[in-house]
Amino acid sequence: MRFAVAQSGGPTCAINASLVGIFTAAAEMSNKVQNSNKIEVFGVFNGVQGLLEEHFVDLSQALADPEDVDLLRKTPSTALGSCRFRMPSAEQDDSLYHKIHHILQKNAIDAFFYIGGNDSMDTVAKLSAWLEKQGSPIRVIGVPKTIDNDLVGTDHTPGFGSAAKYVAMTMQEVVRDSSVYRVPSVTICEIMGRDAGWLTASTCLLRSNGEVAPHLIYLPESDFSVAQFIRDVKKAMESHRSVICAVSEGITLDGCDYRSGANDAFGHAYLSGIGRFLEDLVRKEIGCKVRSIELNVMQRCAAHLASAADLEESEGAGRYAVQLALEGLSGQMVTLQRDTGSEEYRIAYSHMPAASAANVTRTFPAAWINSSGNDVTEEATAYFLPLIQGEVLPTMRNGMPVHFRFAT
Amino acid sequence: MRFAVAQSGGPTCAINASLVGIFTAAAEMSNKVQNSNKIEVFGVFNGVQGLLEEHFVDLSQALADPEDVDLLRKTPSTALGSCRFRMPSAEQDDSLYHKIHHILQKNAIDAFFYIGGNDSMDTVAKLSAWLEKQGSPIRVIGVPKTIDNDLVGTDHTPGFGSAAKYVAMTMQEVVRDSSVYRVPSVTICEIMGRDAGWLTASTCLLRSNGEVAPHLIYLPESDFSVAQFIRDVKKAMESHRSVICAVSEGITLDGCDYRSGANDAFGHAYLSGIGRFLEDLVRKEIGCKVRSIELNVMQRCAAHLASAADLEESEGAGRYAVQLALEGLSGQMVTLQRDTGSEEYRIAYSHMPAASAANVTRTFPAAWINSSGNDVTEEATAYFLPLIQGEVLPTMRNGMPVHFRFAT
Repeated sequence: MRFAVAQSGGPTCAINASLVGIFTAAAEMSNKVQNSNKIEVFGVFNGVQGLLEEHFVDLSQALADPEDVDLLRKTPSTALGSCRFRMPSAEQDDSLYHKIHHILQKNAIDAFFYIGGNDSMDTVAKLSAWLEKQGSPIRVIGVPKTIDNDLVGTDHTPGFGSAAKYVAMTMQEVVRDSSVYRVPSVTICEIMGRDAGWLTASTCLLRSNGEVAPHLIYLPESDFSVAQFIRDVKKAMESHRSVICAVSEGITLDGCDYRSGANDAFGHAYLSGIGRFLEDLVRKEIGCKVRSIELNVMQRCAAHLASAADLEESEGAGRYAVQLALEGLSGQMVTLQRDTGSEEYRIAYSHMPAASAANVTRTFPAAWINSSGNDVTEEATAYFLPLIQGEVLPTMRNGMPVHFRFAT
Repeated sequence: MRFAVAQSGGPTCAINASLVGIFTAAAEMSNKVQNSNKIEVFGVFNGVQGLLEEHFVDLSQALADPEDVDLLRKTPSTALGSCRFRMPSAEQDDSLYHKIHHILQKNAIDAFFYIGGNDSMDTVAKLSAWLEKQGSPIRVIGVPKTIDNDLVGTDHTPGFGSAAKYVAMTMQEVVRDSSVYRVPSVTICEIMGRDAGWLTASTCLLRSNGEVAPHLIYLPESDFSVAQFIRDVKKAMESHRSVICAVSEGITLDGCDYRSGANDAFGHAYLSGIGRFLEDLVRKEIGCKVRSIELNVMQRCAAHLASAADLEESEGAGRYAVQLALEGLSGQMVTLQRDTGSEEYRIAYSHMPAASAANVTRTFPAAWINSSGNDVTEEATAYFLPLIQGEVLPTMRNGMPVHFRFAT
């Protein structure tokens, strides 16, 4: 058998762990069977774009050294590169589908694995449906990843726990930094997540580590009022010398347009600037010392702070995807299911149609937001805490981490 | 004997290690001598401000548990708080000097240690000179710290190595993140250091870890031309799909005023926004995908990435300060001297008059900047490399680091 694996969408710290999961599960299966049933795994560069150009790498050769497999697992971002590519509707134009089918057939690929987010699941759903219609036995399986945690049908998404760990640890250090002076101050941390507030909400984790901060948490799932924000900050300043606010990049303001207006290839607005906007607002309206911090791409690529739980589950999701393909399933996305009956945190892998995950955003539960819309409840902390457990120490050289890179 | 220790200026990851050095050296001395010669060490909150209010903590009580000493050593920022306070000239008005003298005498303090940067050394110089003039035996010793590495007379400053390690490791992860797509892109990292380019220059360390990035490095020590910057970026884009620029917050532009204009208590301009300014410039002039990243306060407080070499030297500087005080010296700043004759990296502690360090900025050597003014030489890499060696693992609880905090 021959597998092809590609990565797509925005980077995370855990997307290479899923690649490792697919590769090692296939290698272990191969070791158990006769030569004719061995599984060969090919990496595809830059997602569907690289597939169209047959830009492949034989993983059994590129990852022959077990040390490289370990390095790849701990390397941030997408080692195979990525793309932002939207499949056209097959009903309107299926020439691209024919082209992909031809390439998969020509290379004798039995299963195509796509590790990605919302938009990648759209590709999995469309491609698998079209192939099935053609009577093709080629399977297409989606492995989820996104720091936004906004995919439906899964308890959480691979990549999210590491991002949450980075945000919590960084914010805790910022709390130390911002509390040294006696003058009252406000610090605004702008956090990623697009239209979902999961990552911003996860800053509540600091409190399970003895911190009072963040004093205010604003998610896109709540109505945001500039006037109420200033009232909230003023009130928090009555009890705290250094006020820390966690703000989602995706909150919408009442009547104020602060966005850059630029859109990415999917028509998603390029979100940036809410932190700076609110900083200026506090300076103008309150006049105190104020600073905004944009955690920027570090939220999704700080592998030196990866959550061990996250990397383990991300690798597990890759392994489970191989199992699904061997069972002959297609058009499915791997999901993580939390055992809610157990006191201990336990995750089981399952699956659902990728079509149900595509183009739907799972937002943060309204029931976990406080009545003032400026904080989250203890249920949220309980949900997040297991996801950031355990450390993954990078392999170091010259005082810096060693990253794995494919020769291209 | 009784010691008082205070911290001042902007936070670093290593300033608490110097506090630990003073505390442990004093404790070790005490163990060797008779009761009457024991050294008691008091922490002073918020620098000179807390001294004026006699806001003290008995460190032998607060740090009775050795585990707390270890936690303090690894806790970022200034555990005793900080201040931005400039001593008036004693010639013009010495009432504040009399007040400080009175408080030190009243509390039977024999030596006052001030851990800080440029401005703190100004305080050490002024206060020690005045006390000496009064015939007071009270010693004042300065322990340097600054991520800017801009103090004269010392090979480097405690706190700098950890900041450089953070910047290098973060930039390496940003390199992975920015190279996943096929579209050409430019990433601009804005790095601290005020008028000195040391921290920005240290990004050259990535190359000793197999990276090509950063492709362009701009320091305040070189003339910066907007037109030349655009030419440099265009040229770099010819050979590299993803161009990474390291830019000092303190570079001055020819004729473009991008600064906020606000000044801090010392009249230093509050620097922010060069990254965003250059991002907009690239978007307008080149039209490619571009992102700016401000490493912000994380550069000075990311203790989870502290350099082991830095913490060791910072602690050693504190220990050496105790030695200077016991020798009866005053008005001195501890310095680090590199053994340039040895192939192995070796540091010896020495000292110099704090007055010589105050109000002087040690800039990055012109000889280590390339002729185009957009990169640094290999001598720079050799200088920086030993400073980021070794890792300091945080003590973890619930997936987050434990920080030490004094009860106040």
